[in-house]
Amino acid sequence: MKHGEADVLIVGAGVAGLAAAHALMQHGKEVIVLEARERVGGRLLRHAIAPDCWIDLGGQWLGPTQERAYALAQRLQLTLFPTYTEGESLVYFGGQARRYAGTIPKLGILPLLDFGSAIAKLDKMAHQVPLDAPWKAPLAACWDSMTFASWIEQSLRTRVGRWGLKLFSEAVFAAEPFEFSLLHALFYIHSGGGVERLSNTRGGAQQDRFAEGAQSLALRLAEPLGARVQLNQPVRQIRQHRESVSATTQSGAIYTARAVIVAVPPTLAGRIEYDPPLPPARDQLTQRLPNGSVIKCFAVYDRPFWRDYGLNGFVTSDLEPLHLVFDNSPPDGSCGILLGFMEGASARRMSAAGFEARRAATLQCLTRYFGERAAQPELYIDHDWSAETWSRGCYGAHFPPGAWTQFGHALRQPIGRIFWAGTETATRWMGYINGAIESGERAAQEVIEIL
Amino acid sequence: MKHGEADVLIVGAGVAGLAAAHALMQHGKEVIVLEARERVGGRLLRHAIAPDCWIDLGGQWLGPTQERAYALAQRLQLTLFPTYTEGESLVYFGGQARRYAGTIPKLGILPLLDFGSAIAKLDKMAHQVPLDAPWKAPLAACWDSMTFASWIEQSLRTRVGRWGLKLFSEAVFAAEPFEFSLLHALFYIHSGGGVERLSNTRGGAQQDRFAEGAQSLALRLAEPLGARVQLNQPVRQIRQHRESVSATTQSGAIYTARAVIVAVPPTLAGRIEYDPPLPPARDQLTQRLPNGSVIKCFAVYDRPFWRDYGLNGFVTSDLEPLHLVFDNSPPDGSCGILLGFMEGASARRMSAAGFEARRAATLQCLTRYFGERAAQPELYIDHDWSAETWSRGCYGAHFPPGAWTQFGHALRQPIGRIFWAGTETATRWMGYINGAIESGERAAQEVIEIL
Repeated sequence: MKHGEADVLIVGAGVAGLAAAHALMQHGKEVIVLEARERVGGRLLRHAIAPDCWIDLGGQWLGPTQERAYALAQRLQLTLFPTYTEGESLVYFGGQARRYAGTIPKLGILPLLDFGSAIAKLDKMAHQVPLDAPWKAPLAACWDSMTFASWIEQSLRTRVGRWGLKLFSEAVFAAEPFEFSLLHALFYIHSGGGVERLSNTRGGAQQDRFAEGAQSLALRLAEPLGARVQLNQPVRQIRQHRESVSATTQSGAIYTARAVIVAVPPTLAGRIEYDPPLPPARDQLTQRLPNGSVIKCFAVYDRPFWRDYGLNGFVTSDLEPLHLVFDNSPPDGSCGILLGFMEGASARRMSAAGFEARRAATLQCLTRYFGERAAQPELYIDHDWSAETWSRGCYGAHFPPGAWTQFGHALRQPIGRIFWAGTETATRWMGYINGAIESGERAAQEVIEIL
Repeated sequence: MKHGEADVLIVGAGVAGLAAAHALMQHGKEVIVLEARERVGGRLLRHAIAPDCWIDLGGQWLGPTQERAYALAQRLQLTLFPTYTEGESLVYFGGQARRYAGTIPKLGILPLLDFGSAIAKLDKMAHQVPLDAPWKAPLAACWDSMTFASWIEQSLRTRVGRWGLKLFSEAVFAAEPFEFSLLHALFYIHSGGGVERLSNTRGGAQQDRFAEGAQSLALRLAEPLGARVQLNQPVRQIRQHRESVSATTQSGAIYTARAVIVAVPPTLAGRIEYDPPLPPARDQLTQRLPNGSVIKCFAVYDRPFWRDYGLNGFVTSDLEPLHLVFDNSPPDGSCGILLGFMEGASARRMSAAGFEARRAATLQCLTRYFGERAAQPELYIDHDWSAETWSRGCYGAHFPPGAWTQFGHALRQPIGRIFWAGTETATRWMGYINGAIESGERAAQEVIEIL
């Protein structure tokens, strides 16, 4: 068996693991990063559709208050550019498309008041959820005993208003409102700075894109690490000894260090074998944090033709299966790219339906939104994150009812020489690139304190 | 690497796996059963406290309509005897103990009506849930969008009535009512034949015990299999080939066959590596079926002294952490054993608190229920199933909101040469010994049809 030795092992070369590696190196610690895939970046993955023209098959956006992510992008000299928002958006509801400017679709005054008052309530409740300990919210027991869907059912009166929050749930959690608790919804809203901050393009979490693709964050972070990043090394077992910890990979290679940071999603962390076994609370936590379901679908055209009609490419819709569309063209508009999302229940149906069915459904939806011109793209590509063995769902994990109050305390709690990172362990912007960076830096700090 | 070859591999030597092995052998198929532990029986585990005096640290009861289990017990010539029910039961609520005969504690007429009408509603709704496809219930979408706790909150008016259903949830699911969906509650109630059938001792699922311990079911099933059962062989990888399937265990041993039956709880099945990887729906299902939390606590006395006071040892209580107690003495009453359950939230707290705290808390509760005599047992033993690496919770898995409707179709669906057993895949008496037998026999039948 080949051996490697360092001060700290890091499992997972996503942004969290690489940020941890970087922070540790800065403190003079030697690291080895063990990555299951043949590439770095985790849930960030770019794909070249032409020379120097990248699309992001995974995470892709930054937005205001994600300071750690912006700082890192700047340090790595990456180029950001705004998501295209010039012109009008579309809302497609009940078989009819409506254009609108700004952020508020024209769906009637009653639904608007209904939805607006629900958002105000959510934002207000969210502020009562402590980001480092959601289970300590004054009403945590009540909020964690019901699904977000039950709250919607109780709190909104209009069909359109309820649909708006279902869309919010799909777009932000890649899950349906019945899959996670109200407490989790509120924590996440607080973590991301409010419903609008999470939802919006300009001024929100979908504001800025990476010219070289978001994965370039990970690629540039990995560059100076060189051979410290070991690809194709899925960690199967982590063993704690009196003075050290070792990780055995699928190939039988054994790596040794004084601490290990596990920087993979909770479900995948739970699939590693630990010796001695993890305490019950930690193990049962990982049984309870499933990943969302999302398929990103790209239609590439010779040019962004919808802009000619004064449209910015943004669509929200109740038409199956493409409820959300963005203009995802390159910064120079040299070609036109529409990005459609299949999320939650739609993603599950269309994952099973297969590539050809997804292509057909996507183009059918896009044609309804943008006319016949949309039916004939030069290229169609999609990416189903639940089919990725080393992600098994995106954007991230969600907490079903009871998970936060019964097991949340075990989320970041180190166990001997094992420390936990990954965006699911972040307090601010959990589920986002910013949260991944926070988590890696926090775990690195914890390790430095005990080394 | 050591090799083994058979017609069918079976992962897990619990009752499900062993029942499958037995059924396959009867059809002339050769089997190898790969068991992670150093013993057979899975969630059945007996422990000798004296020569020929067994206590069940795991599952222990049979009851009416569990025909497969009774038939198997008879075929294996095991001795059953009734749980002790002579005399009065105790209900301890709000700091006060009350005695009562029969099954209905005296807690006031209003709570009684409230609770009774809730049970009637549940039983009626449960009948509308198809056991082989709960997601096809007419109101499945609605029932799966809310927690059982939300339904209780909406449907019961009295504190005592709500407490009764919380107790039901803990006793039957080892989980709190907010952890699983109303649809799952209804499926489970239908699967077990109604709320009373699930709850009762005489005439219900707690009616009969095994003189030699329930694990003797597995021990006797394993006997004729001899070396076909391979202990200490945790399966780490299952690989499908064109004409065969192979399983690699932790020690590196490789076993080959034409089909494999995976007969372990869903979470643990999800922790095995599959090549090729499992389809998204199957993988995401295993991310969503957490195990309950239960610690069985035994206090052993020289004799069942509570019987002298006309008590049968049965207690339901709101006192932390022991909400449920049974007389678990041997059939001849040669010593007295009280069995207390810590379940759901109580189990999690007391798992972290440690053995001494559990012992103290158990004896404190038993003293409140049965007087000072209970404070000095000859022996105290407990067993925390969430700490067992190869169970990671008991009694079984529960389905949080959305799991049945979004992923239930993947529960039993074979994938190539891989078939699924385990009590969680049963239609009748899911979560019970009877369900385990059904699941093993069903999976064996599926395999026979393709071999």
